[in-house]
Amino acid sequence: MINRVAITGGTHGNELTGVYLVKKWQKNPSLIERKSFSTITELMNKQAIKEVRRYIDHDLNRSFGLSDLLNNRLDSYEAKLAKELNSILGKKGSDTPNVDFIVDLHTTTSNMGLSIVVSNMSRITWRAIAYLCQKEPNLKVYRWQGDIENAFVDSIAPHGFAIEVGAVPQGVLRADLFLKTETLIYHLLDFIEKENLGDNLELPNEVEIYDHEKLVDYPRDENGDIVGMVHQDRQDRDFTLIKKGEPLFLTLDDEVITYKGESLYTLFVNESAYYEKGFAMTLARKRVVSIMK
Amino acid sequence: MINRVAITGGTHGNELTGVYLVKKWQKNPSLIERKSFSTITELMNKQAIKEVRRYIDHDLNRSFGLSDLLNNRLDSYEAKLAKELNSILGKKGSDTPNVDFIVDLHTTTSNMGLSIVVSNMSRITWRAIAYLCQKEPNLKVYRWQGDIENAFVDSIAPHGFAIEVGAVPQGVLRADLFLKTETLIYHLLDFIEKENLGDNLELPNEVEIYDHEKLVDYPRDENGDIVGMVHQDRQDRDFTLIKKGEPLFLTLDDEVITYKGESLYTLFVNESAYYEKGFAMTLARKRVVSIMK
Repeated sequence: MINRVAITGGTHGNELTGVYLVKKWQKNPSLIERKSFSTITELMNKQAIKEVRRYIDHDLNRSFGLSDLLNNRLDSYEAKLAKELNSILGKKGSDTPNVDFIVDLHTTTSNMGLSIVVSNMSRITWRAIAYLCQKEPNLKVYRWQGDIENAFVDSIAPHGFAIEVGAVPQGVLRADLFLKTETLIYHLLDFIEKENLGDNLELPNEVEIYDHEKLVDYPRDENGDIVGMVHQDRQDRDFTLIKKGEPLFLTLDDEVITYKGESLYTLFVNESAYYEKGFAMTLARKRVVSIMK
Repeated sequence: MINRVAITGGTHGNELTGVYLVKKWQKNPSLIERKSFSTITELMNKQAIKEVRRYIDHDLNRSFGLSDLLNNRLDSYEAKLAKELNSILGKKGSDTPNVDFIVDLHTTTSNMGLSIVVSNMSRITWRAIAYLCQKEPNLKVYRWQGDIENAFVDSIAPHGFAIEVGAVPQGVLRADLFLKTETLIYHLLDFIEKENLGDNLELPNEVEIYDHEKLVDYPRDENGDIVGMVHQDRQDRDFTLIKKGEPLFLTLDDEVITYKGESLYTLFVNESAYYEKGFAMTLARKRVVSIMK
């Protein structure tokens, strides 16, 4: 039984879709009310939202690792904010969490369409994903299970995921993608309602996902500055296969750098926020995940 | 006779196309060398480039008004930087300017394609524009002649204009638009070379332009926060006509606000940097400008 759902926006202050969806719902709360559970909304990084920046000191969506949440010596803006948000929406790892399910709203400058980023493997999380894929056949699912601790916002609740929608520039609201994200949330709330009420949902037995394999960085000089960009033939080609020998980067010296690895899918191609993180795209493998009855 | 041309990039630190074109040319200067004149390049707002922000204190591309350049009490980062750049690339209004022609490289999150923003009405400026329109039939020309003093970068030289290319998010390099901008600059340098050498250029007699009429702001609440976004049917429709009754905005209350004025062309639709400046798009009138022989 899901008793409390949190919809969070503005974890990155320059990703406006989530910020304005939350503002819309705070103005019109009946849109997200359902009978069997309560829904709360939260504007996450208010200072970054005000400054239309991704973050103030460091990425809030990498600040929810348990050891960081328990470390009282961390006093950056986002470290303190993460602790505060964890006390409202968590607590992470608690047997009596304040919230059962978190959906965290993001946008990307990559051509990711409507997509889910998920690390949680709980039954209800994946049944929700199966339902959403049924409702929105173009929805894509990217699973991230790194070797480091999950420090995303949604990790502080027992169930949940993030939504990534693109392409949309930072600091811009695109009505088309705003409306698609909004509809996806209503489907999610409808699913939780039906699941709570014991409806006999006819869900697919399996869901196609893109499983994280590795990151690819830009070509860089000895100072770390990039000296090449994503090749024009790879730009906007998220969730498509890249094969050995295909163009990957175009350098400032007009050289084409080709891809040398095994065939994999490219995701988060040329995302603005990842220039500083050191990757030009993610490589993923297509798999099928079974959905528990 | 044009003796010295300046190509400037990074006037806005998060518009990477100009930044990396200048880096490319500083690494490979022969690409922009021509026989009859010298070409210099300048990275304009180095601190903003480093921080991948539009500006530090205020917009550098509104900081070259003559009264501001002469006002020694202005001591913001960009006010001081504008004075420094004016001493290298100006001086504005001088009879013996350091540079004869400035082309300032910008990008926009709007779907402006390859476009020129021009205020200067000099003969050579417009002959250059006519030549570029001949070489690039998709090139669009937006003329801005406001009632306030021109404070753009290119205003400090006797001739010149800005190039705006989009749609590209802030903080992103798109190879396709990078290459288009690069080609346009080579055409411009070729034109100046031919003009200097007295080649008999067969230029068109007139050029179609979009003449600035007015700005349209987003719907806002009493605190100035936006409560609506560009309607999905208007998004990406730069350089297209908007007629009375057509959808303009979609509010957070799901209301459609329609356009009520005379038929005009929409430009800079949903540009990220203009949310804070208070406009959602520019309205312009299509005209024809004669080119002097």
